[in-house]
This record gives sequence, C-alpha cells and structure tokens, in this order.
Amino acid sequence: MAAPRLTIDQYFEGIKQTDTSVLSRGITLVESKSPKDRELAFELIKRVLPFTGKSIRIGITGSPGVGKSTFIDGFVEYLVNEKKIKTAVLAIDPSSKVSGGSILGDKTRMESIVGSHDVFIRPSPAGLELGGVGAATFETMLLCEAAGYELIIVETVGVGQSETVVNDLTDFLIFLTIAGAGDELQGIKRGIMETVDLVVVNKADTLEGKTFEKLRLNFKNALHLFPGKASGREVSVLSCSALQKIGFEKIWNEISAFEIVVKGNGHFENNRMHQKKLWLQKTLERSILEYIYQNEEIKNQKEYFEKLLSDQNVNPLEAASRVFNIFKSRFQ
Amino acid sequence: MAAPRLTIDQYFEGIKQTDTSVLSRGITLVESKSPKDRELAFELIKRVLPFTGKSIRIGITGSPGVGKSTFIDGFVEYLVNEKKIKTAVLAIDPSSKVSGGSILGDKTRMESIVGSHDVFIRPSPAGLELGGVGAATFETMLLCEAAGYELIIVETVGVGQSETVVNDLTDFLIFLTIAGAGDELQGIKRGIMETVDLVVVNKADTLEGKTFEKLRLNFKNALHLFPGKASGREVSVLSCSALQKIGFEKIWNEISAFEIVVKGNGHFENNRMHQKKLWLQKTLERSILEYIYQNEEIKNQKEYFEKLLSDQNVNPLEAASRVFNIFKSRFQ
Repeated sequence: MAAPRLTIDQYFEGIKQTDTSVLSRGITLVESKSPKDRELAFELIKRVLPFTGKSIRIGITGSPGVGKSTFIDGFVEYLVNEKKIKTAVLAIDPSSKVSGGSILGDKTRMESIVGSHDVFIRPSPAGLELGGVGAATFETMLLCEAAGYELIIVETVGVGQSETVVNDLTDFLIFLTIAGAGDELQGIKRGIMETVDLVVVNKADTLEGKTFEKLRLNFKNALHLFPGKASGREVSVLSCSALQKIGFEKIWNEISAFEIVVKGNGHFENNRMHQKKLWLQKTLERSILEYIYQNEEIKNQKEYFEKLLSDQNVNPLEAASRVFNIFKSRFQ
Repeated sequence: MAAPRLTIDQYFEGIKQTDTSVLSRGITLVESKSPKDRELAFELIKRVLPFTGKSIRIGITGSPGVGKSTFIDGFVEYLVNEKKIKTAVLAIDPSSKVSGGSILGDKTRMESIVGSHDVFIRPSPAGLELGGVGAATFETMLLCEAAGYELIIVETVGVGQSETVVNDLTDFLIFLTIAGAGDELQGIKRGIMETVDLVVVNKADTLEGKTFEKLRLNFKNALHLFPGKASGREVSVLSCSALQKIGFEKIWNEISAFEIVVKGNGHFENNRMHQKKLWLQKTLERSILEYIYQNEEIKNQKEYFEKLLSDQNVNPLEAASRVFNIFKSRFQ
C-alpha cells in the first residue's frame, strides 16, 4: 500500500526543504489518476509554481546500446561533483504495449552520489492513459524545480514516440550515438535530426581521431539537410567516453553557451511557452475524450458500430462518422 | 490543378477494371479533407467494400540504410514475375514536423514491371491532421483491393510513430535489418520486436555463414524475451540479398505458411477486426476534437488560458481542467 496522503502544507514544506522522501510522495500524487488526488495535485502545483521554471531541462535520447545509462551516470556525477549543480534525472518509460510491463529495472546507479540530496532519480513508468505519457513528467519537473534542482535530465527509455515527448518537455536535446550505429546516414532519424541541439558520439575512446572526424562530418552533412534551427545555434557534434569520463566538460560548455544564446534571442522563452500550450492542449483533449466515452448513448452506439464492423458492408471510417453525428447532436 | 471529380459510377467501374489512372484519382479523393469529397469518398468505399479484404497486407519497417527500397523493388518484382501476384505498394510518409516537406522523392523503381497493371505504387505524403497518418492509407488499401491487387505492401518512410501505424494496418510485419545495425541487442527496438512477424537480414551476401548464424541466434534470443505471439507462429530470422535477388523464395514461403496458420487459428480475423475498431476510434476522436475547437466559447477560453500561461501562476494542466469544465457544461 502507498503511504497516506500528506497535507498540502506538508508536501509544500517538505519539497521546499529538498526532503526527497516528500518529493517522491509528491510525484506519486501528481502521477495519480484519482480525481481526489488530481485536486490535491493541482493545489500543490499552484503552491510551488512561483518556485519553478528556473532549471535547465535537458532531454537525452538515442538508440539502446549507445550507452545512455552509462552516459547519464557519468555526466550527472560530473555535474554534481565538479560543477556543484543539483540534478534530477527523470525517465520516461512508455509501458510496453503488448506486455504492459515496464522496461526500466532497478536503478542502482551512480554509487558515488546516490544518497546525497544533490541528485534525485525517478523512473516514471507512466501508462498511456489520461494525460498521456509526459503530462505527469511535466508536473514532476515542476516539483523537482521547487525542490531546488537546478538541472533536470529527462531520459527516454523507449523508442519512437517517447523521443517527441522528451523534446516537448525540455530546453536542450542531446542525441547520443556511437560509431557504426548508422545514425549519420543522410536522412536517417529525420525526426531526431530536426529537433536535436547536440550530437554526442559516445565510446569515442575506441575510435581513431580520423574515424571520429569523418563521423562528425557525416553528421554535420546530415544536419545541414534541415532548415536552420529556431534556436539560432548550430548543432555541434562532440565526442565522449562515458566509461572513461572523458568529454563531459565540452558537453557542459556547449549547454552553457546554448543557454546564453537562447535566453538572449528569446528562443528559450518562446520554446517554454510553446510547450506549456502543448501540455494544455494534450491534457484538455484526453479529458474531453474520456468524458465523452462515459456517455451512455455514445458508448452504446460506438459498441453497436464496433459489432457491425464484422459485417463487410461497414467501413470503420463511415461508422466513426455516424457516432460522431450523435456526439454533435449532444454538444452545443 | 487536380483533375475534376468523376462520378461514383466512373470511379467504381474504373477501379473494378484496374484502371490505374482512375484508381489514383480515387485515392486522391479518399485523401481529400474537403467535406464534399469525404461524402463522395464514403459512397465510393461503400460501393467497393464487398470487393475488399481478400488481399494479404504486409508491412515493411526498418531503419533507413538497411536497403528497404531495394528490398521492396526486388521482392515486388519477384512476386509479380515469379508468383504472378498483383501487388500494390503504399508508402506512409508522415510529413516532417519542422520542414512540413515530404521525404519521399520520385519513385523511378522496378523498371522491369512499372507500366504493367500488375504493380501499383503510391506514396501517401499524408499530413498529420484529420484522420491522422494512416486513415487515408486504410481506405487506399480498400480501393487497391477492389482494383484486384492481391498483395498490399505498406512501407514506412519515417521512424517511430509510423511503425505503429503500419502495424495497425497490416497482417504481417517484416522487420528489415542488416548486420552491424545493432538491432539484435537485447531489449532493442522493443516496440518492434514485440509486433514483428519476420526478421529479414538484408545484404547477407556480404556475410560469412557463421556471422549470419550468430546474428540469427542473437535475434532469436532477443525475440524470446517477449511473450508468445498472438499469431501462434514463432518469428523466423531469414537472410536475403535484395541486390542479388537471393532469399525472396524463403520469405514468400514464410508469409504463405503464416497466412495458413493465422487463418486456421482465427488470429487473422481477430487482428483485422481489432484494426477496424482502432480506425473507427481514431477517426471518431479526430472528428470530435476538430468539432469542439470550432465552438466559439471553447476556442476563446482556450486562447484566454493560453495567454494566461505566460503568467507563472497558471499551470497548463490546471488551465486544461478549466477549459474542460466549459466543455462539460455544453455537453449532455
């Protein structure tokens, strides 16, 4: 059983004092789907909002096998130990469609800093219902910011859709890759190449300098296929060895330089505003659809047409149009 | 300018006679977003429905660089020339989010069979609006079936979301890969491994037998991480060289064997029914949301709250909840 709810004051005070156990319980609250919890969650978010928005939000994506976990472990250790930056790591894990299970196992990582209040790690095995993947992560970010975390890393666990979600949540997107993954081929991973702010080639300690340089140029060529970035900053391709802890400094310098540029040219604020609107819309649409499906007539008619589908003479798109007409008659 | 609309009879007769120019115009009709065209499209689909559903629908996915186009070219030539199977190739190309452009260029492929009525190739650069990616492809498939195509290949152009869409449209999903792509790593591309029906290792002419066998075992191990397939058929890993036209026979044999199994155990029919329900639901939801956004009060309130978002004291998820309450008051 989950621990009982705290009062708003208890959540708020605990989070403000970086009490990670209260922060965790606050996150459980914003992840909850019960209406009672949602109400409390809204109250809590309202309380913490004035203390949010100040962190840098970094997304990290890349295919499995490129060393994402090792990279995040090493980079977070570097940020906390060398740069004294309080960092929170959130993982988006869209539960597997078929098995319904969670890919993410235990995280016994970052031995040297776990236990310190300067790092907070939270996997979010959110289902696909309600706010959808990411809505809870958005509120979780706000709670972490209120708790004083200065940098938030949002990690994708899945492939595909979760990459878009991470981009919709963060200020700066790192695409992690390795030599031989083929990611540099022209046109490859177009969805990613368009949205990425930095390419990092991991495991570069195993590469000759010439090999990395060739890979870097290939990436540069691939990136040049796309229109100029809205950020106004060109995408760099950097090398790194997460295992050997080499290359973190350059990556951090690029993030810092990016931050200065986008805060100067207005992109930072524009992007955050765009994201807020997006979450408003996504959440609104999920709520509306859930509510509509609770309506008896629409539910029955939808089920009636679903049964009719086995009859070859009904096109599902036409059936949709008939149920839609019922909705229309009930909405004014 | 597009050619003017035909009459329902002209569309229907032309399609039934495999007149590819009429078929193309029929597809343009079902892809259209104008209400007038949608009405005509529904009529047309209704007319052709009794002549649909008989083809085998095959999805092909895989990262760019694995030789997907070459594979499809060679495989379709094989199907048409050797097996005398009339084949249609449809490409799902979710237009790029940033550039809005289409990745798919001209298709001057399959020189030996293009021009014959036994093969039909249609890229569908569908936008993300209305029925969403795939709804038009669903109706396009029906038209192709009515035109007598016995096998439909649906090809993904993008990565991520479009793979899910292809799986929602087809009976049999081929995952194309090459050695060194890293696709065989445990847990990799989990979303794909769960839904795939056949893994084909392309460019196998460049591999030693031992290398392929190792790769095959790695894939088998990766596949065994997932629960048994609903199809009741184990996923095979086959080798192929699309360029050398080697391996097509085995792939075709696997598709044929699969078809017999799934038609015998009921999975084929279950899967198609599930897909029909899915397209009903997707289309219904798009229609409802579009209609709601046309409502003046909801539109205004949404815009009002979007403006309020720049005020740090409004949480987008709370704003969504307020607009939702307006919807609720207008729906009964």
